[in-house]
Amino acid sequence: MSGVSKELEARFRSDPFSSWLGFHLDEVGPGFARVRAEVRPEVFNFAGAPHGGFLFSLADAAFAAASNSYNQLAVATSVSMQFYRAAELGDTLVAEARENHLTRRAGYYEMTVTTAEGVLVAKCLGVVHRRNRPLVEESPSEPGGVGDGGHPGVR
Amino acid sequence: MSGVSKELEARFRSDPFSSWLGFHLDEVGPGFARVRAEVRPEVFNFAGAPHGGFLFSLADAAFAAASNSYNQLAVATSVSMQFYRAAELGDTLVAEARENHLTRRAGYYEMTVTTAEGVLVAKCLGVVHRRNRPLVEESPSEPGGVGDGGHPGVR
Amino acid sequence: MSGVSKELEARFRSDPFSSWLGFHLDEVGPGFARVRAEVRPEVFNFAGAPHGGFLFSLADAAFAAASNSYNQLAVATSVSMQFYRAAELGDTLVAEARENHLTRRAGYYEMTVTTAEGVLVAKCLGVVHRRNRPLVEESPSEPGGVGDGGHPGVR
Amino acid sequence: MSGVSKELEARFRSDPFSSWLGFHLDEVGPGFARVRAEVRPEVFNFAGAPHGGFLFSLADAAFAAASNSYNQLAVATSVSMQFYRAAELGDTLVAEARENHLTRRAGYYEMTVTTAEGVLVAKCLGVVHRRNRPLVEESPSEPGGVGDGGHPGVR
Repeated sequence: MSGVSKELEARFRSDPFSSWLGFHLDEVGPGFARVRAEVRPEVFNFAGAPHGGFLFSLADAAFAAASNSYNQLAVATSVSMQFYRAAELGDTLVAEARENHLTRRAGYYEMTVTTAEGVLVAKCLGVVHRRNRPLVEESPSEPGGVGDGGHPGVR
Repeated sequence: MSGVSKELEARFRSDPFSSWLGFHLDEVGPGFARVRAEVRPEVFNFAGAPHGGFLFSLADAAFAAASNSYNQLAVATSVSMQFYRAAELGDTLVAEARENHLTRRAGYYEMTVTTAEGVLVAKCLGVVHRRNRPLVEESPSEPGGVGDGGHPGVR
Repeated sequence: MSGVSKELEARFRSDPFSSWLGFHLDEVGPGFARVRAEVRPEVFNFAGAPHGGFLFSLADAAFAAASNSYNQLAVATSVSMQFYRAAELGDTLVAEARENHLTRRAGYYEMTVTTAEGVLVAKCLGVVHRRNRPLVEESPSEPGGVGDGGHPGVR
Repeated sequence: MSGVSKELEARFRSDPFSSWLGFHLDEVGPGFARVRAEVRPEVFNFAGAPHGGFLFSLADAAFAAASNSYNQLAVATSVSMQFYRAAELGDTLVAEARENHLTRRAGYYEMTVTTAEGVLVAKCLGVVHRRNRPLVEESPSEPGGVGDGGHPGVR
């Protein structure tokens, strides 16, 4: 994994809800993140499909990492999600978040949830409000942090 | 609790993901449901607030019960959510789903997530596609099922 | 009409797209607006119903007035809409925007579109980013602007 | 233009609201459509930017053509939109709708609105409910309509 400082990456990996749900942060970089999880029996709903909340949580975990990847605190204001297909028990689901637009105060992302084979399961659009403070303190001499266009600690 | 057959209520209460997350189904009736949960340490995100996925899951649990309350299988096609405030550790959160419109094939709901004191934390709009089959088999002689306007088993 | 300065009200009434579509701003106040329009032949779509873009535009006009009602420039970042029913030729449609939450930098609104008889046609959730500048210059001695909790010109 | 029967294409081109707003249907095919329009003075809002309702209407016009391209009546149930940038007076805006998923009863689309130069202005997700009837009567001997996998008149 690369693209953010080790302090920021450590913060992302410390997410309690993601740990509880068994999410694994595969990759995070400026404006991008990929998270994966296995479809276990406990994530199913009463209709026999993975719970919408599980799919949303996975997409939201990628959204949170991507939108906070500049180490400027980003808070979701709205998310919209479409649900296409039910995944199966034992499937690995992969959520990717990509940045559609970024301003000083707002960030716009879209998230896909696919199976490991690339079948599209769900898709989201999400917006964050970017606050005027860092998420973590980063070590000033982070290698690679120089000349990256103004995102301290991004490498 | 009332408003749906005992078989349907039992099905709603069997939801694995809701059980895992500690959700409690307070009430369900035709086009309505209320679910509650406590904000525990494991539902927090890396920024120190309850995870958006947790809030969504709670609203989605109410949405699922309300939209399936007629015992006609309802599958979410899209949900949009706005996030207003961060709840606190130990708060009880209450999600209510209400029906805005219902056709033979589609149902439209809105969900609120509030604290036990009624402070608005988040709000959603969701749509389901209604399939042409029941969720559970209901006992034919369900008391109270008579004269309810055509929803078998609703009491 | 009341609730905002005459300069701000005049600005709202100058909206070219609303004028073109025949929208009438009924009322605007802090965090609230109501706009109405008649369903004319030219707003129909190829399927014989009022165009989704017409319904959205009406809701968006109420959203814009409500979210700019404090004379702090508000720009929409996202809107989600549910469509319930087709209105009829000659119907008067009424869009109301109400504030769900307001911070220094963000505003959250919900909009309903109903017939004049109150039948629900569509519903929206919308979020704005609030910029750090006024929409209009207001006259400093606006009567009623005193003691209103810090929104200059609101009366 | 190609990809749908001449009767269906004619129906799409007869859309009154699109005509009124100056929309031009560039292309439509199975699950796809592209519509363009010029940013004229009358589509601006009171803040000096093209009205959100104008951007939505353009995206919705592409959505409507794409989702009805199989000549099975499709009615929007929900749409979510993100707004990235303000276009300029005189810009040509292009809306494209693409299908993310299709079932017998539901269709899922995403729409982009860009400038002619490809700068992303807005993005949408939309869902339709597909009714069990055609939008137009198509001529039975439509060339190319044979063997297309069950979409009568698609060529």
